[in-house]
Amino acid sequence: MGALSETLTQFLIPVAALVGIAFALLQWFLVSRVKVSSHDSSNGYKAKLIEADEQEEGIDNVEVSIKCAEIQHAISVGATSFLYTEYKYLGIFTALFAVIIFLFLGSVKGFSTKSEPCTYNQGNTCKPALANAAFSTIAFLLGALTSVLSGFLGMKIATYANARTTLEARRGVGKAFIIAYRSGAVMGFLLAANGLLVLYISINLFKLYYGDDWEGLYESITGYGLGGSSMALFGRVGGGIYTKAADVGADLVGKVERNIPEDDPRNPAVIADNVGDNVGDIAGMGSDLFGSYAESSCAALFVASISSFGIDHDFTAMSYPLIISSMGIVVCLITTLFATDMFEIKNISEIEPSLKRQLVISTVLMTAGIAIVSFLALPSEFTLFDFGTEKLVKNWHLFFCVAIGLWAGLVIGYITEYYTSNAYSPVQDVADSCRTGAATNVIFGLALGYKSVIIPIFAIATSIYVSFRLAAMYGIAMAALGMLSTIATGLAIDAYGPISDNAGGIAEMAGMSHSIRERTDALDAAGNTTAAIGKGFAIGSAALVSLALFGAYVSRAGIKSVDVLTPKVFIGLIVGAMLPYWFSAMTMKSVGSAALKMVEEVRRQFDSIPGLMEGTTKPDYANCVKISTDASLREMIPPGALVMLTPLIVGTFFGVETLAGVLAGSLVSGVQVAISASNTGGAWDNAKKYIEAGASEHAKSLGPKGSDCHKAAVIGDTIGDPLKDTSGPSLNILIKLMAVESLVFAPFFAAHGGLLFKVL
Amino acid sequence: MGALSETLTQFLIPVAALVGIAFALLQWFLVSRVKVSSHDSSNGYKAKLIEADEQEEGIDNVEVSIKCAEIQHAISVGATSFLYTEYKYLGIFTALFAVIIFLFLGSVKGFSTKSEPCTYNQGNTCKPALANAAFSTIAFLLGALTSVLSGFLGMKIATYANARTTLEARRGVGKAFIIAYRSGAVMGFLLAANGLLVLYISINLFKLYYGDDWEGLYESITGYGLGGSSMALFGRVGGGIYTKAADVGADLVGKVERNIPEDDPRNPAVIADNVGDNVGDIAGMGSDLFGSYAESSCAALFVASISSFGIDHDFTAMSYPLIISSMGIVVCLITTLFATDMFEIKNISEIEPSLKRQLVISTVLMTAGIAIVSFLALPSEFTLFDFGTEKLVKNWHLFFCVAIGLWAGLVIGYITEYYTSNAYSPVQDVADSCRTGAATNVIFGLALGYKSVIIPIFAIATSIYVSFRLAAMYGIAMAALGMLSTIATGLAIDAYGPISDNAGGIAEMAGMSHSIRERTDALDAAGNTTAAIGKGFAIGSAALVSLALFGAYVSRAGIKSVDVLTPKVFIGLIVGAMLPYWFSAMTMKSVGSAALKMVEEVRRQFDSIPGLMEGTTKPDYANCVKISTDASLREMIPPGALVMLTPLIVGTFFGVETLAGVLAGSLVSGVQVAISASNTGGAWDNAKKYIEAGASEHAKSLGPKGSDCHKAAVIGDTIGDPLKDTSGPSLNILIKLMAVESLVFAPFFAAHGGLLFKVL
Repeated sequence: MGALSETLTQFLIPVAALVGIAFALLQWFLVSRVKVSSHDSSNGYKAKLIEADEQEEGIDNVEVSIKCAEIQHAISVGATSFLYTEYKYLGIFTALFAVIIFLFLGSVKGFSTKSEPCTYNQGNTCKPALANAAFSTIAFLLGALTSVLSGFLGMKIATYANARTTLEARRGVGKAFIIAYRSGAVMGFLLAANGLLVLYISINLFKLYYGDDWEGLYESITGYGLGGSSMALFGRVGGGIYTKAADVGADLVGKVERNIPEDDPRNPAVIADNVGDNVGDIAGMGSDLFGSYAESSCAALFVASISSFGIDHDFTAMSYPLIISSMGIVVCLITTLFATDMFEIKNISEIEPSLKRQLVISTVLMTAGIAIVSFLALPSEFTLFDFGTEKLVKNWHLFFCVAIGLWAGLVIGYITEYYTSNAYSPVQDVADSCRTGAATNVIFGLALGYKSVIIPIFAIATSIYVSFRLAAMYGIAMAALGMLSTIATGLAIDAYGPISDNAGGIAEMAGMSHSIRERTDALDAAGNTTAAIGKGFAIGSAALVSLALFGAYVSRAGIKSVDVLTPKVFIGLIVGAMLPYWFSAMTMKSVGSAALKMVEEVRRQFDSIPGLMEGTTKPDYANCVKISTDASLREMIPPGALVMLTPLIVGTFFGVETLAGVLAGSLVSGVQVAISASNTGGAWDNAKKYIEAGASEHAKSLGPKGSDCHKAAVIGDTIGDPLKDTSGPSLNILIKLMAVESLVFAPFFAAHGGLLFKVL
Repeated sequence: MGALSETLTQFLIPVAALVGIAFALLQWFLVSRVKVSSHDSSNGYKAKLIEADEQEEGIDNVEVSIKCAEIQHAISVGATSFLYTEYKYLGIFTALFAVIIFLFLGSVKGFSTKSEPCTYNQGNTCKPALANAAFSTIAFLLGALTSVLSGFLGMKIATYANARTTLEARRGVGKAFIIAYRSGAVMGFLLAANGLLVLYISINLFKLYYGDDWEGLYESITGYGLGGSSMALFGRVGGGIYTKAADVGADLVGKVERNIPEDDPRNPAVIADNVGDNVGDIAGMGSDLFGSYAESSCAALFVASISSFGIDHDFTAMSYPLIISSMGIVVCLITTLFATDMFEIKNISEIEPSLKRQLVISTVLMTAGIAIVSFLALPSEFTLFDFGTEKLVKNWHLFFCVAIGLWAGLVIGYITEYYTSNAYSPVQDVADSCRTGAATNVIFGLALGYKSVIIPIFAIATSIYVSFRLAAMYGIAMAALGMLSTIATGLAIDAYGPISDNAGGIAEMAGMSHSIRERTDALDAAGNTTAAIGKGFAIGSAALVSLALFGAYVSRAGIKSVDVLTPKVFIGLIVGAMLPYWFSAMTMKSVGSAALKMVEEVRRQFDSIPGLMEGTTKPDYANCVKISTDASLREMIPPGALVMLTPLIVGTFFGVETLAGVLAGSLVSGVQVAISASNTGGAWDNAKKYIEAGASEHAKSLGPKGSDCHKAAVIGDTIGDPLKDTSGPSLNILIKLMAVESLVFAPFFAAHGGLLFKVL
């Protein structure tokens, strides 16, 4: 037994979660002190505080503030209404899928209500399969609900913060940065703390029924991960199609044909574009990372439940994954104070380093945190189950497993930054290739994305090898959780991006001065890079999580080995490796078709609404919002079905070995497609920004806006949009979700699967 | 024993090979009857035979013919000089690598000259490891030489035929088609027959030393495959970079900046572009397919040598793969007569169906051929070695293995045609997306490529499952050989493409009339599609070949299972899946950089040579040829080193299991990247041609040449160039070559490999 008593564990986990929630609310309160409308008499900042140059530029602050409030309102209404509509679809899906889970898992033992002998804890009796079916279904519903809540709250705070960031930009770039970052932190902490709390409460409630049957308890809990990730799938895909249809549509007509700037209020698709940032990059990503977090926790808990922890009923050791997450909340809380209170940003060039510093601080602090938790919560030595054999593990082994995941995340983050930030040569080379036109820009961008895969894969492979050698599949699950342990900070940095992007959009639409727009642009450029880093984390952790889930699935399905040399496994492997392509084909085509519709509508409005180009008439924003909404909801169904049905069809008709092949194939192939797509897109976006900003001699020689080079860069940026914001990040979910779904349905496939091979 | 006696087998195989060679020479003679220069008094066609409309157009036939001869000469000289330079590099590489093979394999038993007990044929003694090292080295050198010869002869006939095709086009499209097709057939038959003959002779010569030690004999013969494929690697990569640097460079300045047509003689890069077709698409592809053929034969022979055939010394059954190839030559000979003598093409629209008919005829005839060979050459029942167990197989099982490979090839060919021919909706949709610019064109094109992967992968997976179930790894090797059994026809169709492309180029450069150019364009458009089909075959067969080689490697390295759940294998799998991306990044960047250099040179010439645009001065073609040559030779080294060194490094430091993971990973991931890259590129090319040809109402609404839609299509085409002609087809070789190299070095890795894990 470790030094931490069960009572203390039972106390510390919920307290850490509640502290996280309280901290998030505090940040929200601090953000709320910026008032968006001057009609409000309780304005916290006196007008005299506003910097002198604003006054000189003669901008009426009251009018600007009202305009910002209006735009924010429009964005918020659009986003909320889209999410409500999306949730209606998701509600139907969730209900149907809950029934499927219950029926499939219930049928494993023919809906018998008799208790069964346990599989691992030999000699004891475990609860009936029907109970596991019921509790898995409940866990699924809880996971789905928490995921939706995470996304929704993130969207709410983001749309609450965007105009506030714009207004704060009048007081200086440092102030605006803090508002944007605090808002990101609200989302990060709410998500991490809620995820932990709901999981903790569920385990304790389930325990009331399960008692000493921990195998059944933690088997059922895996439904939580499935619920989280299946909502994330639709959130990412639907949100991704929404945001990019609007973005591509707005750019193709606005920037390319009409030569008006980005976020110009005359562009009918501009509100839809800004709504998209919130439903795709915020709500979608929130659900995604929540899914990863829930899945890696569930995978670790499931693997632990069949180790000596589970057999000995050592609750503290069993809760090691949850205690790591609790420590993560505390570490991220301290880290956040560095950004918001200890350093002050005075210069545009300090933004990106400051965000990167957050990553380093949280990683260093968390390393100490992991050491503390590992020595306090774990017994000095324990036994893990390793596919038929037993493995003796020491507590410091686990420290290394979690720590290597954490540091691999940092490596991936830094490499992603290197390949997507325009401060370094890769993006500058891509920008330079625009001299010879769009074609070379695309060729160089694709090559950059392919190349950016190399080091992250080595980092992931090293983590896998070390953590597996030290602690088998449990080690991999804990490495994944290590990478996600600083999720609150990671999400804060990630959400900061779209918030700043929106802030810039609002500044442009509200007609604020050039100097304000320059500040929000600088915030946004840093946000582009951090968004790419966030995607890097999401993909890296997804790879580890999927492998851990894969291991748990193999244990649960009772497979002894997944031998590539057997044809059943190999065909699974090659078909699995194909799925990311099929999925990407669907999502990219969806974005393309939806964007074409948007283009037609935007063109129609420009052609048919008199005075639109002159700015004397308002465009019909709502129609564009409707096109994006309809397209994304309709188009998210086929890729969603591909992901949800593949494990069911393969498991039922081809059996557990082929399904194992499919999971391994989609994992090793999907990671590459996802990383290269995200980084290619990020690089094109920043190559364009590099030319636009013209900050160096080289950049100036390629610009200015509207030059041939810039036009070539805009084409690259547009191609990159669906790659980096739709197909790339959705692939994380493809690989995770198929693995967790297989894990949940494993008992069914093991009992009744492989129909086709049985017939042949 | 089968019905065929050993004596008859020993007679039939070389006879089939010699018949193939004789048929190729006959075709060459028929092509040579078209004279390229009118100075030659022995002109086989009287001037009066030339169609009347040509005379009306007032084109001086003597002058045109001389011009064609000049251009052909320039192309031929450029191609020959490039290949000679390339072969100098390859000579050094081959010598070095031969030493490595000898030293590595010799060291397995410490250079001992003592005979060893056999591994499979228990109780008998086999030749010493040192002998195997020496004979593997010799086989490697023979394979390399045959591969180089295949590529070189192909290039020679292609450059011999291109102007002849142009001149024949004056007499009608049907006549020109026959010349182009006959020339392709020369290459196809020479390659298939030479490959078979050299292999057959080598086996018989090696047998003089090895006698009854068939394990050692067929182990050494695998070096033939390695030699063939390593030359193919450099041929494909070097040739691919050459051709696309010239093509992209020529297009970017000529078509986009200067608005002059493709193949305009004023473009300084035009000769380099045409040379590129011959060294990349002809010589490179010839070496590639020869490599596949040699490897699948070697894999099948190696696996058979440790079966009951090998133990019983049943030479006829052992030679089953060679007899299948012999039958293939006969079948393709009959098939060719259908194209050249039985049907006549009178109309442009008949070209593509006629080429497709060749595929169908050869497949149907070959199915009967396989049945005959299977029943005559194989005993009705025999035993195969299947990773530690024995498997009883019947002769009709083998018929199904070979036939399913053959038919899977046809399916892949047809699917490739569907996704890359502009007669169907996928390419038309891509063309349509050009309405909204280059960005949507690229998005739709990428999505098309991803989608085109689905059915080929299912076809490959089905072949693998069926052939493995029926005859284990031998079945897969024979399925691969089945797909390649009609290689003579496949290559004829494939080589037809670049020959027609060159013919069109020569027509343009020689200033021939519009109606001639229309005919060569139609020949070329069909060639684009068949080139894509050829790539589909190359990739599909590469997948099967690699898997067969992988199986042979696993047998030879003595691995019992390749379990994804062991960390050693899994890290290999994920890193292996990354290699195609690393490789593609290198090759695409190489094309990009080389193209940039070409662009600068072409611009410089247009700017500095007075009278160039007016056509009064000749450009400096030689300088462009030199740029392409230098760039391709320099840039082929890093990707070549990646492929050649990976198995050596992984095997030596990480051991045989990790290497098995790397091979499986690169196979399942590389196939997807290769298929999608080839088809995306092919689709963009034909979308552009669709708009240019304007053959339908829809196509007319997008055109004409020079319209915004067409410009967007040209950008897509340029991006597709390196995808479809450099990285895509080189990936076949990546996956095959790493597998065959691992197979050859397997004894060394098994004896001394895994240093790093031994230390840890």
